[in-house]
Amino acid sequence: MTRLQLHNHILQKQSFLCVGLDTDLAKIPPHLLGYPDPIFEFNRQIIDATRDFCVAYKLNTAFYETLGKKGWEALEKTLDYLPDTHFSIADAKRGDIGNTSKMYAKAFFETMDFDAVTVAPYMGEDSVLPFLGFENKWVILLALTSNKGSADFQMTPQEDGRPLFEKVLRKAQDWGAPENLMFVIGATHPEQFDQVRAVVPDHFLLVPGVGEQGGDLKKISKHGMNDQCGLLVNSSRAIIYAGNGENFAEVAAASAKLVQTEMAGLLPR
Amino acid sequence: MTRLQLHNHILQKQSFLCVGLDTDLAKIPPHLLGYPDPIFEFNRQIIDATRDFCVAYKLNTAFYETLGKKGWEALEKTLDYLPDTHFSIADAKRGDIGNTSKMYAKAFFETMDFDAVTVAPYMGEDSVLPFLGFENKWVILLALTSNKGSADFQMTPQEDGRPLFEKVLRKAQDWGAPENLMFVIGATHPEQFDQVRAVVPDHFLLVPGVGEQGGDLKKISKHGMNDQCGLLVNSSRAIIYAGNGENFAEVAAASAKLVQTEMAGLLPR
Repeated sequence: MTRLQLHNHILQKQSFLCVGLDTDLAKIPPHLLGYPDPIFEFNRQIIDATRDFCVAYKLNTAFYETLGKKGWEALEKTLDYLPDTHFSIADAKRGDIGNTSKMYAKAFFETMDFDAVTVAPYMGEDSVLPFLGFENKWVILLALTSNKGSADFQMTPQEDGRPLFEKVLRKAQDWGAPENLMFVIGATHPEQFDQVRAVVPDHFLLVPGVGEQGGDLKKISKHGMNDQCGLLVNSSRAIIYAGNGENFAEVAAASAKLVQTEMAGLLPR
Repeated sequence: MTRLQLHNHILQKQSFLCVGLDTDLAKIPPHLLGYPDPIFEFNRQIIDATRDFCVAYKLNTAFYETLGKKGWEALEKTLDYLPDTHFSIADAKRGDIGNTSKMYAKAFFETMDFDAVTVAPYMGEDSVLPFLGFENKWVILLALTSNKGSADFQMTPQEDGRPLFEKVLRKAQDWGAPENLMFVIGATHPEQFDQVRAVVPDHFLLVPGVGEQGGDLKKISKHGMNDQCGLLVNSSRAIIYAGNGENFAEVAAASAKLVQTEMAGLLPR
């Protein structure tokens, strides 16, 4: 998907919501456990219910890998079921030496057909570049994550006094462009968005951490939005597990619509 | 596997070699392509041929994921085929927020039964801890990797003038112990091993980058060994692709034996 297509979809839906499919057998409604593939059945109903209110889906690979081969099957089936209109993200946090990153890139962009994959920056340039060689595919590079542990290394000052995540933002601009590179910036750091936008004014940001993790949509939009919107705000648990009964999909739809309505008010008229 | 068991195995085999199963359909001998599962068939023959000369096997998950569901099957079958005596490593470079890292830990330690998994440190403490809660299982944390990109962030000085990888080594000692935590230190940085050992004298180090990547075994042993050996030196391509004919396994065995013989001379008498 191109940046223009993504922006147009955001304008059309009046939404920059990404729904995170962190699908966990221990958390889905019990009545689904009788299905041959409960994970896929849950995802299918969630997708049907929420697609009108979001522009992207993020599949967290950990939740599928934990089920082994069957989980991998559910991941592939879910990806195939996603509407073509929606931006699809493999939240895989991969990254390795060049020849290995190339294999991961093939896994997510060729064997499967995701639009984007999240990548960890710790191993540097040659661990990221192999993901950037695919037309209309995207790297979403971890910069400042939403968790407590982001303070351990990402926030600590380098020799020049600036935090590591800022160095990641700067370096990565030599590797990719706003057309194929986004950054993860956690919603739990709203005070950092001005600083982030000073370094990367044009790139899209994938923002996890609203909902369960407590981030504030209004603040993020005020400080993080650019003239192409430039934000994909992810919510996983607060939407997909909003209900746990037979009507879970309707409840998820209502939760997604609530976020979409708030987003419509935050987008420029 | 415990640290004592690993050390005993090293003494018994007179080897601290880890064979890396970076198995690639494009590189295995063509006569194997007719088998129902060529990847597994290659691994099976390599394992049979090299098990007497090594103490560990490292499966690089990228090479399996790139084949989709079938690759995941080959990964599971290969793990099941590994001898119980050998230390098994999922070279997966995972790491995410706490609830997600927990899912990855379950994937590699419960759904599958690896002894160890490689973990990326960028997301900090709560991304690593969930992997450390399993008895006799190990985290192998990336510190200083073997690739060129290690210079981008790992080697750059922090506010105190010390490189980031040293901060990772220091912080991580609050999270795990020499009984459940190793570090990746690339063989391409032999000059750094004294510095590493000054910070982590007791931990095992997983050392990739000999063979194809050019690391020097003698230097690494001189500067990296401790009184429990403390090293697992990985070689992937230089062993498994040493031959490409029908006798590839014999050639791999000879290559592994050559490394083992050199290692025997480097271990204390």
